[in-house]
Amino acid sequence: MGLTLTQKILANKAGYEVKPGDLIEIDVDMVLGNDVTSPVAIKEFLKIGVKEVFDKEKIALVPDHFVPNKDIKSAEQVNIVRKFAKEYGIVNFFEVGQMGIEHALLPEKGLVLPGDVVIGADSHTCTYGAITCFSTGIGSTDMACAMATGKAWFKVPEAIKFNLKGKLNKWVSGKDVILYIIGMIGVDGALYKSMEFTGDISSLSIDDRFTIANMAIEAGAKNGIFDYDEITEAYVLGRVKRNYKVFKADDDAEYVKTYDIDLSAIKPQVAFPHLPENTKSIDDVGSIKIDQVVIGSCTNGRLQDMEVTYEILKGKKVHPDVRLIIFPATQDIYLECVRRGYIEEFIKAGAAVSTPTCGPCLGGHMGILAKGERAISTTNRNFVGRMGHTESEVYLASPAVAAASAIKGYIASPEEVA
Amino acid sequence: MGLTLTQKILANKAGYEVKPGDLIEIDVDMVLGNDVTSPVAIKEFLKIGVKEVFDKEKIALVPDHFVPNKDIKSAEQVNIVRKFAKEYGIVNFFEVGQMGIEHALLPEKGLVLPGDVVIGADSHTCTYGAITCFSTGIGSTDMACAMATGKAWFKVPEAIKFNLKGKLNKWVSGKDVILYIIGMIGVDGALYKSMEFTGDISSLSIDDRFTIANMAIEAGAKNGIFDYDEITEAYVLGRVKRNYKVFKADDDAEYVKTYDIDLSAIKPQVAFPHLPENTKSIDDVGSIKIDQVVIGSCTNGRLQDMEVTYEILKGKKVHPDVRLIIFPATQDIYLECVRRGYIEEFIKAGAAVSTPTCGPCLGGHMGILAKGERAISTTNRNFVGRMGHTESEVYLASPAVAAASAIKGYIASPEEVA
Repeated sequence: MGLTLTQKILANKAGYEVKPGDLIEIDVDMVLGNDVTSPVAIKEFLKIGVKEVFDKEKIALVPDHFVPNKDIKSAEQVNIVRKFAKEYGIVNFFEVGQMGIEHALLPEKGLVLPGDVVIGADSHTCTYGAITCFSTGIGSTDMACAMATGKAWFKVPEAIKFNLKGKLNKWVSGKDVILYIIGMIGVDGALYKSMEFTGDISSLSIDDRFTIANMAIEAGAKNGIFDYDEITEAYVLGRVKRNYKVFKADDDAEYVKTYDIDLSAIKPQVAFPHLPENTKSIDDVGSIKIDQVVIGSCTNGRLQDMEVTYEILKGKKVHPDVRLIIFPATQDIYLECVRRGYIEEFIKAGAAVSTPTCGPCLGGHMGILAKGERAISTTNRNFVGRMGHTESEVYLASPAVAAASAIKGYIASPEEVA
Repeated sequence: MGLTLTQKILANKAGYEVKPGDLIEIDVDMVLGNDVTSPVAIKEFLKIGVKEVFDKEKIALVPDHFVPNKDIKSAEQVNIVRKFAKEYGIVNFFEVGQMGIEHALLPEKGLVLPGDVVIGADSHTCTYGAITCFSTGIGSTDMACAMATGKAWFKVPEAIKFNLKGKLNKWVSGKDVILYIIGMIGVDGALYKSMEFTGDISSLSIDDRFTIANMAIEAGAKNGIFDYDEITEAYVLGRVKRNYKVFKADDDAEYVKTYDIDLSAIKPQVAFPHLPENTKSIDDVGSIKIDQVVIGSCTNGRLQDMEVTYEILKGKKVHPDVRLIIFPATQDIYLECVRRGYIEEFIKAGAAVSTPTCGPCLGGHMGILAKGERAISTTNRNFVGRMGHTESEVYLASPAVAAASAIKGYIASPEEVA
């Protein structure tokens, strides 16, 4: 029996034949933690009693959730991580001012590569599947063990194939594709399975792919993964610091299900409260006034996201009843946005532009909603109370829709303002 | 008996003779509140039962302390202010993305002018004395009454004269002058008195003067005030939207004390924990390692502060053990910093650059200190626990010293890096 792309990567690491459902313990290429999950992992790591971490270069510690420190508690949490990184010589610790949101930062820095097995104590670790590696979220105790042993165990997942064709229309992006898919299959539609994106992926930029893989977890998937092509290669080559190996699915790979997706038929999507699966086409949204717009996060804080935001905002003004908060996902993205003149236009339009942080996405800080308030956000979850009060609402959408909505004051199509 | 500058402004409003110690109730030209103090004032205002505010254009509501909303509670607070502003037609309500830190924003927008009487429910309302008006901090209930009646009561203050001469040396700025003075007279050295700055003030830029007047409260003063000159006029003229009147002290004005200050003799100053009066010249600081540097706030987040920060940081890197967080004080300042290339250099140097907020200055968010951590900051208070844990430390200094320290990793003179 042939193997899917995910199964091939796992089999390679295992060094023996694997099939879906097998429990395997394999080496990992990168272990990630943030300021919320690392302190727990560090506590457990210290209990193990080993003198050193398995590899000082294969651990990434990225305080990003509540930084710059939201409060004393978060300051203490980051301090635990900082001190551990120093004491154990962790190379990839990222300080405020030199960092970014973990899932934008790791690929940008070339720390995750095609063919890798990556685990991270954050559910959106699945993001890196965009560059054809196996990456998935794990718990803090798994992170602790992996920091000590360099290994993690997995149940080899079954796969769902998403066979893409056609080209995205103007103002439609990866966010719309993944919201459309989650709307179709539901938030448990890919439970413990890998979502494998193949077919004609040539119209999907690398940033589109990061967004799509990022939200695989919102369909319950173990991971999301894209075929390797020249777009992947172009992204990876400037960043690579070690060898990597390219895998592809066997021709006779078995999938539990195959979906054919016509990219050209997808319209801008909006996920209504309180689940990412509550999607509607922008044409069916109706009149929904908003109080806040957030553009950023590990899902949509990359350069392409900033570029489309710029295209929409340029020369326009944010609606007076709306707070627009923009978070470039990394310092490098922020810098490039300054150089390209995006930040100037964002400020002129009336947006608050902040240093990278997860901030409001998970109700952390920097844009929390009061009772009864409504936000449209490029983030990944719209659960009850996700961004503040339990009686607030979050609508998920692309940067194009979010920026257009910021101008109009209600959820709007990019075509209304562009 | 002659009157001092402050007394002249108060007498003008009273319309009758006043002398120090008199209790007067007079009209105010501007009533200010922020997200912390306005909700209390609004609650009290509603108890008064008037249908309208005294003047829709003479109230400024500036949510700046915990914005973008730090948490649900702060979101609810801002929402109270926002709804009140809408319902009562308050013209000068400033939304996230269109705002700045109150004491930088009001003069910038031409909302406070020479000769004005300004009250604000924030202790640093004394800032506007830089442009030759009487401005002082009041409580939320006074703010409530003033919103209803347009009046406030004061005891006419005695005055201390600061007779300035000489020119500031390179890397010395208004912050050093006021820290030097507070070091000399103590944090209660001007209790309920006006600090009147006169003599040769020509080497003090308008931003230097804002910084000096801003910290008058740190010497316990009722207000700080500068003579009017061509520098004041140049700043005000481009912003003025109504008539204003220029006052000056009578030649025979009486001062309870006069200090002669030679500006050329002042070196960069650092206020040690835990009082602004614990000042030392930079030469006497010794070796003090730091964890965090904050450049911004109503004290030192203006364009000149950003300019000197740029001069120091340009082409250099923040020390790896230091987080440098920079907050331009208003959106306009932020925009100008982008245009001048400052933000690009800040990010390249490894600084986190955020949208305007009071944030860490008062231990709000965006840079809170853990136990045992040490910060040098351009803010105005270094009380116990001001910026986080009660066992953290804050050192106050100018942007030049703060930026130099960010590069060195310890409290450093600008001359060490420039």
